[in-house]
Amino acid sequence: MSVLVVGSVALDSVETPFGKADHVLGGSGTFFSASASHLAPVQLVGVIGTDYPVDDLRRVLAKRPIDLSGLECADGASFRWRGRYRHDLNMAETLETHLGVFSNFRPKIPEAFRSAPFVFLGNIDPRLQLEVLEQVAKPKLVACDTMNFWIESRRPDLMALLEQVDLITLNDAEARQLTDEFNLVRAARWIMAHGPRHVVIKKGEHGAFMFTHENIFFAPAYPLESVFDPTGAGDSFAGGFMGYLARTGDLSEQNMRRAVVYGSAMGSFAVEKFSIDRLLEITPEDIRRRVADFHRLVVFERDIE
Amino acid sequence: MSVLVVGSVALDSVETPFGKADHVLGGSGTFFSASASHLAPVQLVGVIGTDYPVDDLRRVLAKRPIDLSGLECADGASFRWRGRYRHDLNMAETLETHLGVFSNFRPKIPEAFRSAPFVFLGNIDPRLQLEVLEQVAKPKLVACDTMNFWIESRRPDLMALLEQVDLITLNDAEARQLTDEFNLVRAARWIMAHGPRHVVIKKGEHGAFMFTHENIFFAPAYPLESVFDPTGAGDSFAGGFMGYLARTGDLSEQNMRRAVVYGSAMGSFAVEKFSIDRLLEITPEDIRRRVADFHRLVVFERDIE
Repeated sequence: MSVLVVGSVALDSVETPFGKADHVLGGSGTFFSASASHLAPVQLVGVIGTDYPVDDLRRVLAKRPIDLSGLECADGASFRWRGRYRHDLNMAETLETHLGVFSNFRPKIPEAFRSAPFVFLGNIDPRLQLEVLEQVAKPKLVACDTMNFWIESRRPDLMALLEQVDLITLNDAEARQLTDEFNLVRAARWIMAHGPRHVVIKKGEHGAFMFTHENIFFAPAYPLESVFDPTGAGDSFAGGFMGYLARTGDLSEQNMRRAVVYGSAMGSFAVEKFSIDRLLEITPEDIRRRVADFHRLVVFERDIE
Repeated sequence: MSVLVVGSVALDSVETPFGKADHVLGGSGTFFSASASHLAPVQLVGVIGTDYPVDDLRRVLAKRPIDLSGLECADGASFRWRGRYRHDLNMAETLETHLGVFSNFRPKIPEAFRSAPFVFLGNIDPRLQLEVLEQVAKPKLVACDTMNFWIESRRPDLMALLEQVDLITLNDAEARQLTDEFNLVRAARWIMAHGPRHVVIKKGEHGAFMFTHENIFFAPAYPLESVFDPTGAGDSFAGGFMGYLARTGDLSEQNMRRAVVYGSAMGSFAVEKFSIDRLLEITPEDIRRRVADFHRLVVFERDIE
């Protein structure tokens, strides 16, 4: 089964303690697609400007099952982000954001994408996320991401969106901001009371929780010896998560747990190089091994007493 | 098998967003003993001043298998700590520390304690930790704790201690300070190269890692809906960990993993009330259930591919 993703396709300039990269492929839609396409076919909807190195994008993504026919090219400049990480790689410092053509983006879902069984609404204006939902036909699962900016400036739209999604992914700070609850268990409960049956709270290097009304599941982040560039880790997580669900088509608790682990695995690859570079080179065997490593990392047998 | 612990026996005054407690039972030795004694007999060595409510201490600890014959009463004031937590319960703000009789403490291990198979050197001067080791006979496992103050002021002694312990527990900030490595995998490797075969790095609400040369194990902190007072969580963790090892006498990788989970379980109880109050009221069934909850929190089945 395929995954439809609507998100940004950007040019990132990133500086970390380990190096820098300028004007490289980035954006939530790009990371999501590069990640999810290891597990299922992806349909990407986004917008780029006339300055985008679209041939580069097509060349690297063409090797993967990613349908780019929903990628619109608009007159104007592409979305550009410039950021920096210090040694605490959990915290990005945004130096510049130029929305460019992204500021007038109105997602148009191609006819062929409208029956996608899995839909991921990347971190864009909740009004646009709602517009996407008007254009798709009864997906099996709809997930969305969001960020502090929308929580602050578009709360009513975001709350309307929550009622229509099955799952939301957000980080711990965003969950606290959205719910005004410091405790993440309470924050998750607040969010579930407003719509989603599943809440995934990402804590960066500290792992991710998946909450449902009945269960809490936790997956650590993989303890890498060198994290090179954390940009895109969250979107790669979402790509691995949704890609695994689309591949298996199984929404049982056990399978959703595995999806969180696949998400964590893909997130752990993304941070090993700049941009989507590492996501492009990994093999199915690399993924299998990383998931096995995750299992070894947390497994323990209960004693009999 | 029994556990010998050498640590502080203090009076804590704590303020959290949820309440305050004045001059209540505290200290690393106290929390460790209250925790470990649910799993194995404990021998406590420490010092109190003439102002200590020793009858209170004996009354509450007498219900548990804790041998207090190594508790020295010295002329002078007891060790007192006053601290405060804001909403970020991961960070204690120390308001006052009065070492009192603790500043002249020289641990004397009673004859009957010298063959304890499990020894925990609570967070005291590394010189004293070394003195304890001179008084005990070939324990099965020696573990130590430490803190920023000793890392800064007693580095040579601490390094000498490291060569003689099997395991060290410390928090993430302390591991970074000790090793000058920001990355915890590298920090753990650095520490192992200087002695201990096992390194347990505690990340407070973000869980705990156990590193060996061959393996990494991770246990999350239990996602409690209300954390009341984090004081003593680390020592209660150590108590659960060492207590479980002493109960089972098994140092296999699988059993050490379970010990980390028992440690996490006991830490999660400690923070539910002030002082050792919650540790005193829990039953074996509460512990069994919490360990089962930990298992449910992280368990996932790998898919077959």
